[in-house]
This record gives sequence, C-alpha cells and structure tokens, in this order.
Amino acid sequence: MASTSASGTMAVKYGTMKTVISGLTVVLPNGDIINTGGRTKKTSAGYNLTNLFIGSEGTLGIITEVHLRLSPIPESIMSAVCHFPSLEDAVMTAQQVIQYGVPIARIEMLNADQMGISINYSKLKDIEAVPTLFFEFHGSESSNKENINIVEELSKENNGSSFKWAKDLEDRNKLWQARWDVYYSVKALNDNGRVYSTDVCVPISKITECVKFAEEKAKEFGVRAPMVGHMGDGNFHVVLPYDPTKKEMYKQLRAFNGTLIRKALELEGTITGEHGVGLHKKEYLLEQHPDSIPVMKSIKKTLDPNNIMNPGKIFDLN
Amino acid sequence: MASTSASGTMAVKYGTMKTVISGLTVVLPNGDIINTGGRTKKTSAGYNLTNLFIGSEGTLGIITEVHLRLSPIPESIMSAVCHFPSLEDAVMTAQQVIQYGVPIARIEMLNADQMGISINYSKLKDIEAVPTLFFEFHGSESSNKENINIVEELSKENNGSSFKWAKDLEDRNKLWQARWDVYYSVKALNDNGRVYSTDVCVPISKITECVKFAEEKAKEFGVRAPMVGHMGDGNFHVVLPYDPTKKEMYKQLRAFNGTLIRKALELEGTITGEHGVGLHKKEYLLEQHPDSIPVMKSIKKTLDPNNIMNPGKIFDLN
Repeated sequence: MASTSASGTMAVKYGTMKTVISGLTVVLPNGDIINTGGRTKKTSAGYNLTNLFIGSEGTLGIITEVHLRLSPIPESIMSAVCHFPSLEDAVMTAQQVIQYGVPIARIEMLNADQMGISINYSKLKDIEAVPTLFFEFHGSESSNKENINIVEELSKENNGSSFKWAKDLEDRNKLWQARWDVYYSVKALNDNGRVYSTDVCVPISKITECVKFAEEKAKEFGVRAPMVGHMGDGNFHVVLPYDPTKKEMYKQLRAFNGTLIRKALELEGTITGEHGVGLHKKEYLLEQHPDSIPVMKSIKKTLDPNNIMNPGKIFDLN
Repeated sequence: MASTSASGTMAVKYGTMKTVISGLTVVLPNGDIINTGGRTKKTSAGYNLTNLFIGSEGTLGIITEVHLRLSPIPESIMSAVCHFPSLEDAVMTAQQVIQYGVPIARIEMLNADQMGISINYSKLKDIEAVPTLFFEFHGSESSNKENINIVEELSKENNGSSFKWAKDLEDRNKLWQARWDVYYSVKALNDNGRVYSTDVCVPISKITECVKFAEEKAKEFGVRAPMVGHMGDGNFHVVLPYDPTKKEMYKQLRAFNGTLIRKALELEGTITGEHGVGLHKKEYLLEQHPDSIPVMKSIKKTLDPNNIMNPGKIFDLN
C-alpha cells in the first residue's frame, strides 16, 4: 500500500500515475525496446501506448524507465485536521469540499478504529480516536488560509470539532502522523501480522453510502475494519489485519472484500481504484468489464503471443 | 481548429481530452459494442482502453458515447490581456508564469500579425497589433486578484504594457475578442479562403526557440504567419491562410510545416499537440515514434483485421 498511496493521496490535485507520467521505456515480450512518449505536456502522435502500459500489471512488457512531469513546489503548504462524531459526517464534509470546488491538494479520512490504532502505535497526544479528516493545501499563504477557512466552516456545519491547522513542516507532520501510521500500525497488531487491503472506488456522490456499507458489513463478518480513504477520488481502503497462520480468518477477509466489491459495482464504482486486479480480482473484473475484456485479451495475445509476461494476471486467456 | 481549441486552450487547468473523459462507448470493427470506463475518478480495472481509443482517429472503432467529468463552476472567473514589444517577451512571460506555478486556467498568445487580422476583422478598439498574451483565472475573487497581480508583475519585468483585467462576463469577452476571432478572421482574408494550421508542441523550456524559428522561417518561405499559442502546453498554431485554387501556395505551406515539424522533433517536441496525424503527418510520425509504430500497427491489425476503420490514417499498414 505504501507505494500506491503516493499516487492515491495526491490524486485530488496531481492526478493518478496516468497524468504525471509523460512517457515510458518498455521492453516488449519479443525483446524490442520502445519509447512511448516524450517531454511535451500533450501529444496526439499515434495511439496512446503510455497509458496502455500503465496499469497493465506487467502483462504487456517490462517498464524500465518512467518519464515524470515535475510540478513547481508551492509557495505555501498548509495542513489541517478535524474530528467528527460520525463517519458519515466526515465523509459528507469531504464530499462537500470536493463538490464546492475548493482547491485542495489532499483529503484523507481515517475511521475511529484506525485512529485508535494509530494513536496507540505512535503514542499520539491531543488527538482523539474518532472519525477524522486530514487536509493539505497548496498555494499562496493567503489563498491557503482562505481555503482553510472555507473547509473549517464546512466541517463545523457537519458537526466537526477540534479543527487544527499548521504551516510549518514539523507541525504539519505532527498533524498528519496518524495518517502516516496506517499501514505499519495495523501490521503491528499481530505478531508477524499482515495487512489485507480492499480498494474499491465509487463516484463521489456514492462515497457515504459505500463507506457506511463497509463499516456495517465488517461487523456482520466479524472482521476488524480500520479504514483510510482518499476522499478526493472516492477511493477508500479497509485495512484488514490478519494472521497468515489462520486460514479461516483469511477466507473471511476475502469474503468481506467480495461483498464490498459487489456493492461498489452496484454503485457504479470500480473493483480497484489503484491496486490493480492481479490474481484475486479476476472474477470481479469479468463483472465490471464483460464486454471489453475480449479487447484486452486480443491486445495481450498480439503483443505477448507466448504469454511470457506475468501470465495469469488480470484475466485468464482461455 | 474550432473543435480542438476547446481542449487546447483549457489544457493548463483542465488537461486534455484524456483527463476529462472517464469512459467511452465504442462500436468495434467486428460489430461488438463496448463500454471502456465508468463514473469513478480513477480505476485500475484492466487495460486503459479509454485512452487507447481517444486519439486513435477512428482507426480502431467508432465512438458513439463519451462520458465527461464535470468540474464545479469557479466562484470567480477573471481575464487579463497584456501587450509586448516582441514575441520573445510575450513567450518568456508565459513560460515564467507556468514555471513559477501561478495557478491559471488559460494562457493564450497571439502574434502581431494575428492581432492585426483580428482587430481588422472585428473592428476592435483600445487594443494594438503587437504580440499579446490572454490570461484567464479561476478561483475565489481574492485569489484571482492575487494571481493577476503576480502575472502583471511578471509581464512588466518582460516589458509588457497596457495590462488590463476584467471580471464581468461581457468585459471578459471584450478583452478576449481578438483571441476568439482567430480562425474566422484568417479565413476571411481570401474569398473562399481556407486555413492550414500547424500544430507542433514542445517542452515549455523550448517554446521561445520554437516560436522564433517559426516566425523566421515563415519569412524565408514567403508565407504569411498569424499565430496563436496555447502557451500552458507549449503548443502553438501558425494559422496559415491560403487560396485552394493556388496549388503552388499550398505546397509552400506544407513545406513550411515540414520544416517546423522537424525543428519541433529536434527540440524533443511532438509533430502534433492536438490535431492528430491523419494523412499528412504519417511520414513525420515515422520519425517521432519509429520504435513504437509496430506496436500500434499490431493493435490495429488485431482489432480491425479487415482494415475497415478509417483506413490509411496515422500509418500505412504495409
């Protein structure tokens, strides 16, 4: 998760990998080496192979170089956090911030359980184990302050409390510490513990319904459900701790994830916002894209006729 | 050009078609109908077919539906214009605005010849036939004013003059009238006149060199060279007027365009920022993407084995 959250958390302002990569060097299954892009901000020179290889999970070739777009460092970066009495209040606030078009670099959400786990892990003070939003603002100092005021107002209208903000790096890192702790704090819950992360993403207007569903179903399935959401994208992860020696527990997690994935599909969402399909979501991909999978397969068969590139991932070829 | 400038001029803030489209309905050459995307802000569910079909110029299938992302209407929209004594000063200003990271929705540039043509076409007053930048700002009223001040300061440092700004729609449209007139004002230069538009795009750091090259070469080739630039993208069009009955003139325009395209390639640019390859840039595509064209061809042959979709465009299949 650590590697994907870099794109996930930044997606409000910076977009996903697709928008920050301008070109790739790829070694094809036949040994040819190609360059897919260039240094310009845009191009219409032939098919967009860059975005075909991004997210193809190694099934079409091996990416050996990535050309990234650079962004100027903002004049000012500010952070804020706010507590909420319910997950619904927190999610509604995030949804309103997005829908009102407040310029914001990141909005992250942690639920009460994840907050408690992070607080315990890093011995955090002055922060409560309740649903919490984490904000980051990029711009001039005055525009950041203006936007912080708007977000504070929206938060209060949704019963937010203990709104705090900071501008210096050290203070900003303190405010966001609970967010940074997500993965390792959950992993530390068990000796040799592992983390199983869900990854559904839904339209912003459906995020409240989907997050509530996840919390309720977790109770039904008897699984502990710390949660972190990239609210600007409608993408959230239930960060499920598990002990790899307990097979039954792992089965429960996968069943819970399956139920959540089907709910996301019902809400016109996607089975995976950023982690990909791999082996375990192949059956759900068939439900999400039944009509376009044949096109994906024909591209795979053409570029990799011997099926030597990460075989068996994303879809079965037969 | 009218249809593409909608994406071209907005690219600073809103990105190109690739970033505003979340999904497509496509009729494939075999008659199958597929949906490539969905309603979420991001997805990693299989290959990115949406961006494969965007820009494929009708060679892979017929797009029958486009799902667009909506953006909130900004609280405030403001426009500004500024004159410059030289094209180089104007381009340098645009480059600095981008590189300093000033949040801006659009920066458009018209050269002296295009300004004169627009002024004459719409009988414009209070505006001069000199190189001119057109700016648009989206945000809160105070952040827009703050950014206008920064842009005015940068403009003055580069010898800009007559800086004007406006916030009401009618005043904004007046300020931008010369920009809106580009296509029809050039077309009106000849009876039954046509317009031939170049479309190179280069890295922002190379835009001054490329624009200067275009102005100088136009003189050498003896062609009239009104110019409009989407400066946020490093993309500009020399908007060449011609009379379709004069074959020699048309040949000159194409030779001039070829020279400009090769210069763009030398500057690590692209042969086409937004208009596409079509028939006339196939030979240059071979120079820009010699190694990846075989991949494009294999995708084309797989999806359209009978070559019934816009045959002969982008590349030759043999």
